[in-house]
Amino acid sequence: MEESKLRELLQTMSLNEKIGQLVQLASDFYSDTNGAITGPMAEMGVTDELVTNSGSVLGATGTRNVKKIIDSQLKNNRLHIPLLVMADVIHGYKTIFPIPLAIGCTWNPGLAEKTAEIAAHEAAVSGIHVVFAPMVDLVRDPRWGRVMESTGEDPYLNSVFAAAFVHGFQGDNLKDDLNRTAACVKHFAGYGAVEGGREYNTVDLSELRMRQEYLPAYQAAVDAGCKVVMTSFNTVDGIPSSANQWLLRKVLREEWNFDGTVISDWGAVRELIPHGVAENEKEAARKALIAGVDIEMMTLCYPNTLCQLIESGEIKESTLDQAVWNVLKLKNDLGLFENPYRGADEAQEQKFVYCHAHREWARRAAEESCVLLKNNGILPINSSKKLALIGPFADHGDLLGAWSWQGDPKRTETLTEVFSAEGINVLTAKGCEIAESKSKLLREAIQKAEESELILLALGESSEMSGEAASRTKITLPECQLELLRLLKPLNKPIVIILFNGRPLELSEVIDDADAVLEAWYPGSEGARAIVRLLTGKVNPSGKLTMSFPQSVGQIPVYYNANNTGRPESENKDEKKYVSKYIDCANDARFPFGFGLSYTSFEINNLRMSKKSITVNEEIRVSIDVKNTGDAAGAEVVQLYIRDIAGDVVRPLKELKSFRKIYLQPGEQQTVAFQITERMLRYWHPDLRFKSDTGTFNLMIGQDSAHTLNDSFYFRATGGMDA
Amino acid sequence: MEESKLRELLQTMSLNEKIGQLVQLASDFYSDTNGAITGPMAEMGVTDELVTNSGSVLGATGTRNVKKIIDSQLKNNRLHIPLLVMADVIHGYKTIFPIPLAIGCTWNPGLAEKTAEIAAHEAAVSGIHVVFAPMVDLVRDPRWGRVMESTGEDPYLNSVFAAAFVHGFQGDNLKDDLNRTAACVKHFAGYGAVEGGREYNTVDLSELRMRQEYLPAYQAAVDAGCKVVMTSFNTVDGIPSSANQWLLRKVLREEWNFDGTVISDWGAVRELIPHGVAENEKEAARKALIAGVDIEMMTLCYPNTLCQLIESGEIKESTLDQAVWNVLKLKNDLGLFENPYRGADEAQEQKFVYCHAHREWARRAAEESCVLLKNNGILPINSSKKLALIGPFADHGDLLGAWSWQGDPKRTETLTEVFSAEGINVLTAKGCEIAESKSKLLREAIQKAEESELILLALGESSEMSGEAASRTKITLPECQLELLRLLKPLNKPIVIILFNGRPLELSEVIDDADAVLEAWYPGSEGARAIVRLLTGKVNPSGKLTMSFPQSVGQIPVYYNANNTGRPESENKDEKKYVSKYIDCANDARFPFGFGLSYTSFEINNLRMSKKSITVNEEIRVSIDVKNTGDAAGAEVVQLYIRDIAGDVVRPLKELKSFRKIYLQPGEQQTVAFQITERMLRYWHPDLRFKSDTGTFNLMIGQDSAHTLNDSFYFRATGGMDA
Repeated sequence: MEESKLRELLQTMSLNEKIGQLVQLASDFYSDTNGAITGPMAEMGVTDELVTNSGSVLGATGTRNVKKIIDSQLKNNRLHIPLLVMADVIHGYKTIFPIPLAIGCTWNPGLAEKTAEIAAHEAAVSGIHVVFAPMVDLVRDPRWGRVMESTGEDPYLNSVFAAAFVHGFQGDNLKDDLNRTAACVKHFAGYGAVEGGREYNTVDLSELRMRQEYLPAYQAAVDAGCKVVMTSFNTVDGIPSSANQWLLRKVLREEWNFDGTVISDWGAVRELIPHGVAENEKEAARKALIAGVDIEMMTLCYPNTLCQLIESGEIKESTLDQAVWNVLKLKNDLGLFENPYRGADEAQEQKFVYCHAHREWARRAAEESCVLLKNNGILPINSSKKLALIGPFADHGDLLGAWSWQGDPKRTETLTEVFSAEGINVLTAKGCEIAESKSKLLREAIQKAEESELILLALGESSEMSGEAASRTKITLPECQLELLRLLKPLNKPIVIILFNGRPLELSEVIDDADAVLEAWYPGSEGARAIVRLLTGKVNPSGKLTMSFPQSVGQIPVYYNANNTGRPESENKDEKKYVSKYIDCANDARFPFGFGLSYTSFEINNLRMSKKSITVNEEIRVSIDVKNTGDAAGAEVVQLYIRDIAGDVVRPLKELKSFRKIYLQPGEQQTVAFQITERMLRYWHPDLRFKSDTGTFNLMIGQDSAHTLNDSFYFRATGGMDA
Repeated sequence: MEESKLRELLQTMSLNEKIGQLVQLASDFYSDTNGAITGPMAEMGVTDELVTNSGSVLGATGTRNVKKIIDSQLKNNRLHIPLLVMADVIHGYKTIFPIPLAIGCTWNPGLAEKTAEIAAHEAAVSGIHVVFAPMVDLVRDPRWGRVMESTGEDPYLNSVFAAAFVHGFQGDNLKDDLNRTAACVKHFAGYGAVEGGREYNTVDLSELRMRQEYLPAYQAAVDAGCKVVMTSFNTVDGIPSSANQWLLRKVLREEWNFDGTVISDWGAVRELIPHGVAENEKEAARKALIAGVDIEMMTLCYPNTLCQLIESGEIKESTLDQAVWNVLKLKNDLGLFENPYRGADEAQEQKFVYCHAHREWARRAAEESCVLLKNNGILPINSSKKLALIGPFADHGDLLGAWSWQGDPKRTETLTEVFSAEGINVLTAKGCEIAESKSKLLREAIQKAEESELILLALGESSEMSGEAASRTKITLPECQLELLRLLKPLNKPIVIILFNGRPLELSEVIDDADAVLEAWYPGSEGARAIVRLLTGKVNPSGKLTMSFPQSVGQIPVYYNANNTGRPESENKDEKKYVSKYIDCANDARFPFGFGLSYTSFEINNLRMSKKSITVNEEIRVSIDVKNTGDAAGAEVVQLYIRDIAGDVVRPLKELKSFRKIYLQPGEQQTVAFQITERMLRYWHPDLRFKSDTGTFNLMIGQDSAHTLNDSFYFRATGGMDA
């Protein structure tokens, strides 16, 4: 529709019709739109009229179902405004990819983009217009369940992935490419910093830290053209995101020029009341709309009170109109006025959803996302050995992780099934339930282990133990699984542990007792196949952590890009006491950001810089030789970090600024090139300007954040900023 | 000296003499001022000239020693400017009082003031002019070792204690009252919020939280006339305190009108280099002086570079002069130009230091600061029973805690000694070392326990396990002590545990296995005597926690005055999953702020309010009846909390606004009166104005923060602010 026509449409809408566009209800409310609204829906205050006027639906899917809802809405809605269909498609629709924290470990944005493209494709042909992804919250606290939805702790890496995901979902021509969906970046902003890692808890960050570390990934998504932004549940500087004008107006609209649609998270508008910034629904609606929330998800503050607020003049109708416009424009950008079904197509749905090609991509993503944490040489396994496959995940399909509502654990191949399909004999035993010891299972497992020459132990968290509303104060494996390990250890057989989990775990005991540990995360629909290929050496592990693993829960937060402090332990080797440390634990992460082993080894050396100083608009060309010095082909992620020696504010010890993932044959050497530009050195200053300093910088290149080639590469830069 | 004379003096000073006034060196540098500077002092770059010009000395004490240093300085210093003598007198000089976290638990600011008065008296007669106390950092993370130096987690209570301590040290007439010292409030600001509880680590707080929660206690100290402010080691909004103009100029000088002296913490000026806001000493000196640090403690950036900085014009001489003036004025305010020795007097030192009267106050403070955490009726103990006194603290003098350099654990009575002195027979056994198991000790302890009818188990942390540079990731008792408890438990004798520690501990196992638990903290010089009097019922415990005890280290931070969040568990009883909680641990503290048991019981009821609404300048009179319903005399702390139902920013679930500690005989009832004023309702708004809102408020009165009388008392207020 032409924009002028759309403007006309807006002008013909009644107040209630306008407000309806700002309402999003779950698909349940539409299932019987011919009949009367009854039961809980009536209690909630939802009327037929409201459903008829509503602008979007949440969680509807399946071509047949979606078309029915859309048809009914088109018929009943006075102006025949099409309905937006939105849903939680986070790491795949029916073909489930590894969880985002695992995708992060691929360090392969192109692959991440592909997973989003496939998720969008399956969702789009099933009738979905907007997916509630990517989630790009920076995360540092593994107690929080939702770290599984993020790509990790680094602002730059998260930004790279944010852009990749958005492009994967939306493509280059969203309107016409019916296999794509609009993306919705979330949770704006700072949700990853919930206090104590406790779900929905308070967030408190300085504005500088917010801008420096937490906002870049959302901005990257917006810059990549992301159509929708979802507010977060938490407070930002004392004000919940859904009532935060600074966040939604100043930062998002004015500074970032976002011209899409803002949606609240589930119920977040009404939650302004328990948050304590609104005494009632009316105040909640007023604050949310004025702050810039266009669509209210699943509560009814807008429909219940906006009419009064407009009529009393407490809210200007132009404010309402702008919000409605943001919704209509999204519909128009998706071409819904011309084609309200968009991609929904039963034939396509049959053909593409969970198709072989998609699952092959899921396998590949899983192969690249598993991280080898330890290997004393036992891996890859010799399949001719007698293998025991033990543990609650040995023959379990719970490999999809949270946020995979369309995925089916029952249709997901288990490790046991894949070994069998590959013709590899394994003796399988459960050993224990995920969180419960059973002596019968234990006995059986010990017996199988005794008969074997090598124990594959598949341990982990159930998928309900991570994800939304799954914060834990203890981040070890469940006690019964540790007990299983303790009972198997004395058998003196080699033990290879495969971990299924959604967060960095406290692994000291596990690591010490195992000969090899493969972090498999929730690897998705084809996870078991990927793992077997990794274990047997058909594929060489190449995943690298994007979130640090702490030594213990008492050491949280541990992240690589911390500040030096005034009394760094590393620079005060002779001082035993008065340095920044704990008296009972090292400062280092158990496994640092960027870490991951391979079946081969790589050497990095011969760092060359084209010059030793830059000014604005200049660049230093850096090159470095990477060699596969082992006897397997494999991929290495070469990581470039920079430290600003002295700034106007304290600067991190190192910041990832660039990386390359390269694949090398045994003995092969390749030169990797990077560019360092003045723009890379910019950061937020106390005067809230984004600029760089004139000064000295330290360049570090390495295979993980804790082990870089050499600390003695320095260069000088002359500071700059945008005109 | 008259101010005009002082101005004249400043004008006669050379540049180096001025800079010297800004230098503080440890007393070692003065021990041989007749001879040459050699060894480490020479390496550090300290010259005789610098010592001669220096304005203050750190850690010198003892009349004879101090007088020698002062005499030498007066002789050698060209203008005969007297030397300031400063020292760490934190919770007593030689008479050691309970650690500040314990003093907080007295909820008795008058008593706190008395402890400071006595500390000042002993320090003053020993030659000290300025004490580095009070420490008023708000603390929420028991991993941090320095929580022992704070009075706890509440901004209001910390403010009350801050003012009490300052008044106790300084009195009403500092210049003439030679038994007083100047106070130095620290650590400005926000040091208590170090990330991960790791000593010297980064602090990040929003400005609103800083102002709302962290700054009030420092401001209370300044308002109480505190002469000196010490900067903290940490960053504030990205800039270390010692280079933070916003903090030291805008907040401290402009907003709070502080006209005293600002001193860096030990080495903090030079630490601007490792922090990464200065490339070298010169930049560190420039940033610190411009930010407002008058005295540089223990590093030499000022003497090494200020001369150049002034001569090059990078720093105006007027900036230097102001800093020097702040030092000279402090000396003058202390009367040092007339009497450079001030209180230093050998006869007084002999008479008062560690005198009986002072120690009686130490005993009383200890009695009021111990907190009874559990009692199934076994306490008070029946002394006619056969008692075993077991544990590493059974006969140990390490009851003083960190920051008690003049205290002498060897002269401190142990529990065993006090029981013996009181004629109470106890079988004593060590059981284990503080952090080491020894089978011989264990066997001996079990034998003694078997012979007894009741086990008194004295457990805890060594004093090196808390205090500065003693952060712990595990906050349980040392494993060997838990083992001791586990071995004693099966004997089925009643067990009373007495705890010596400097932080809230994770106590689940201890609490479950004991019949009674008395939290004794580090109770000071007379701690053992106080404890025996409490255990035997001569004194009734009345201490109440001022810092929450977490369930486990994974639950940190837990504090009573948290925000409600948008999905509070308490308001969503039917919703099991999507509320703000952990899946493996309750949200409540193990022991909440304000909690402490007594040998008697109290009932609080009949809350009356003079009216149900107020405007500016009005007050609501609240009264409530408190009755001792048990059969022992005792003290109760009645706590008044208010919740602002809806604010411009989210407001805490409850905030302590007033309290009364009253002493009641058995059966006695007393009416306690409070006033609620509009000023109490003020808080920092997003526009950085300190004002109150018009709205509804919830009044809660109770015996601890988790158990208040009734949640249904509400009142309305009309918002106000200063003109």
